[in-house]
Amino acid sequence: MLKLNIMVMDNENTEATLETLGEFGLIKYLTKSVKLTQKSTDKGVGDDAAVLDFAGKKTLVTTDILLEGIHFNLTYTPLKHLGYKAAMVNFSDICAMNGKPTQILVALGVSKRFALEQIEELYSGIYLACEQYGVDLVGGDTSSSLTGLTISITCLGEADADKIVYRNGAKPNDLICVTGDLGAAYMGLQLLERERRVFEGQNLTDFQPDFAGKEYILERQLKPEARKDIIEILAKEHIVPTAMMDVSDGLSSELLHICSQSAVGCRIYEDKLPIDYVTATMAEEMNLNLTTVAINGGEDYELLFTVPLALYDRVKTLDNVHIIGHIADKQDGCALVTRDGQEITLQARGWTAFASEN
Amino acid sequence: MLKLNIMVMDNENTEATLETLGEFGLIKYLTKSVKLTQKSTDKGVGDDAAVLDFAGKKTLVTTDILLEGIHFNLTYTPLKHLGYKAAMVNFSDICAMNGKPTQILVALGVSKRFALEQIEELYSGIYLACEQYGVDLVGGDTSSSLTGLTISITCLGEADADKIVYRNGAKPNDLICVTGDLGAAYMGLQLLERERRVFEGQNLTDFQPDFAGKEYILERQLKPEARKDIIEILAKEHIVPTAMMDVSDGLSSELLHICSQSAVGCRIYEDKLPIDYVTATMAEEMNLNLTTVAINGGEDYELLFTVPLALYDRVKTLDNVHIIGHIADKQDGCALVTRDGQEITLQARGWTAFASEN
Repeated sequence: MLKLNIMVMDNENTEATLETLGEFGLIKYLTKSVKLTQKSTDKGVGDDAAVLDFAGKKTLVTTDILLEGIHFNLTYTPLKHLGYKAAMVNFSDICAMNGKPTQILVALGVSKRFALEQIEELYSGIYLACEQYGVDLVGGDTSSSLTGLTISITCLGEADADKIVYRNGAKPNDLICVTGDLGAAYMGLQLLERERRVFEGQNLTDFQPDFAGKEYILERQLKPEARKDIIEILAKEHIVPTAMMDVSDGLSSELLHICSQSAVGCRIYEDKLPIDYVTATMAEEMNLNLTTVAINGGEDYELLFTVPLALYDRVKTLDNVHIIGHIADKQDGCALVTRDGQEITLQARGWTAFASEN
Repeated sequence: MLKLNIMVMDNENTEATLETLGEFGLIKYLTKSVKLTQKSTDKGVGDDAAVLDFAGKKTLVTTDILLEGIHFNLTYTPLKHLGYKAAMVNFSDICAMNGKPTQILVALGVSKRFALEQIEELYSGIYLACEQYGVDLVGGDTSSSLTGLTISITCLGEADADKIVYRNGAKPNDLICVTGDLGAAYMGLQLLERERRVFEGQNLTDFQPDFAGKEYILERQLKPEARKDIIEILAKEHIVPTAMMDVSDGLSSELLHICSQSAVGCRIYEDKLPIDYVTATMAEEMNLNLTTVAINGGEDYELLFTVPLALYDRVKTLDNVHIIGHIADKQDGCALVTRDGQEITLQARGWTAFASEN
């Protein structure tokens, strides 16, 4: 692998900094506490490539790139949270295949304005995520960058061949289910952005943002969780969804993907959308339409999946799983049925496109 | 996976641009011609994760990040070459484990100054590399960036469990072998940098760089090849090296890694270093010490490996393989033996650190 190649090794310097650690030193330093726990990990960091053994299981692999100023704003994102979230969005993709995340590789581009302590902070979040989800960090690359912070994470996972769930298996009359609640991460972002604007406008050094009672939506934005718990429940209940995705861009957008790839239509019901009380309060305070927030706000990292209608009795009793509608024939199109019975065609609108309305 | 989330889907616009293609459109557009050829690829681009099946083989995985202004300069690097090289450096890491590259995932951060045609050009280089090495592109992520171009590639490969070669298996008296020739990529970079400075100094619109007769070193810098051919030859000859790396940071640096991880020393001989005639001419023209160029210049992507002394007769007849020295006891240290018999201690100096001397 290419390494942090503008830094020079200097063994005489005892105080560790990005400059003194050097290319190989930084990687060693950041990964010195890595413990490998996955049976499928033969060899992690320290050679040209990691060596894995999925022994009869299928291998899942996904990659994400996060760029400063586009995906995160360090004004209000603690680096540890950022590391945690960067790992989590990848775990979520593996869960969305009905798989179990097993290994990650982390590639970083770091500008000179970052100190070693900050990169360690970022890594501590990645490690926390790995520890909590039983995932091994097995490789990476670190480079200087001219500007800003870039985080590119690749995650591997495993699944039994007959348990993998794609986006294209939804059938008419299947139930549409979503886990947890929707729109909270989006409202958390709106709150952080509002306080940032207030802060920048007032330019006060003793500024204290007003987050009282809003902790839930902040946590949903800053420290999301992949729904590994749901994957485990589905396995325990011997339920294999017909189609599944994670909600990263917004329910509406993800549902349209499932419908497009499965060649079906759908109906979801406004009064069935799971929304937390804090999300609702915040949307009202900011004069935003709550249903729009719930279906177009992104980054919830909940699971959206479909199951055969015959499983209705079993699915409706599952904790944290909500039935919000059903799959229809393709010619019926994709629509949201409002509280007063109107049908509104679903549109693919990513969360940032949506954000630009405000 | 997160997608290009500041771009908005617009189906009404018929002329494809980065803006009109939108987040999912861009990925579809760039990967529309992907053909999957690897037996281990079950499902490529288009779901939350790719699905692979290594069926009894070990899985190898490596990741690299390339940043504009650090790893490449678009003044003299054609985008197609850049894509080819970005893929190749990852293939090389898999070869360095004595494995076969099988799949890649490509994550891009692209600033607004790039047009769709340019990103297609970059991808065409990646595809060419994949085609020539039989590798499947199975996933990726594309995002806007505030500045510059970022390319993060993850490569998977496969190997039989008993054929994987690590860095830590070199034993005293093992032969040290290197493939191809050394220092050419570094001299190619020096030439490109010199012509860039001339160009910028003169500020001529009709400037023609002077590359006549220098094509070899330019190609080594701009279009390196992973030594998959050597891996195939070793397999055919039933030779499994005791330790192996690819030469990305420079022979000296890589050899020190092998010696450190294997707890051994080494002797390499100045008069055995394989150097191309064009490299030598260019070094003389630029007043650079040729041996320094050969042992510290990086990006050759040749293979450096060790084999038991008993294999001497078989290894010495292999095409493109050069025996340059032998492994010694740890207490003997690591040294280059000059033409006049002096021993010079090897030092780890990455190629850019080296470049900063000039």
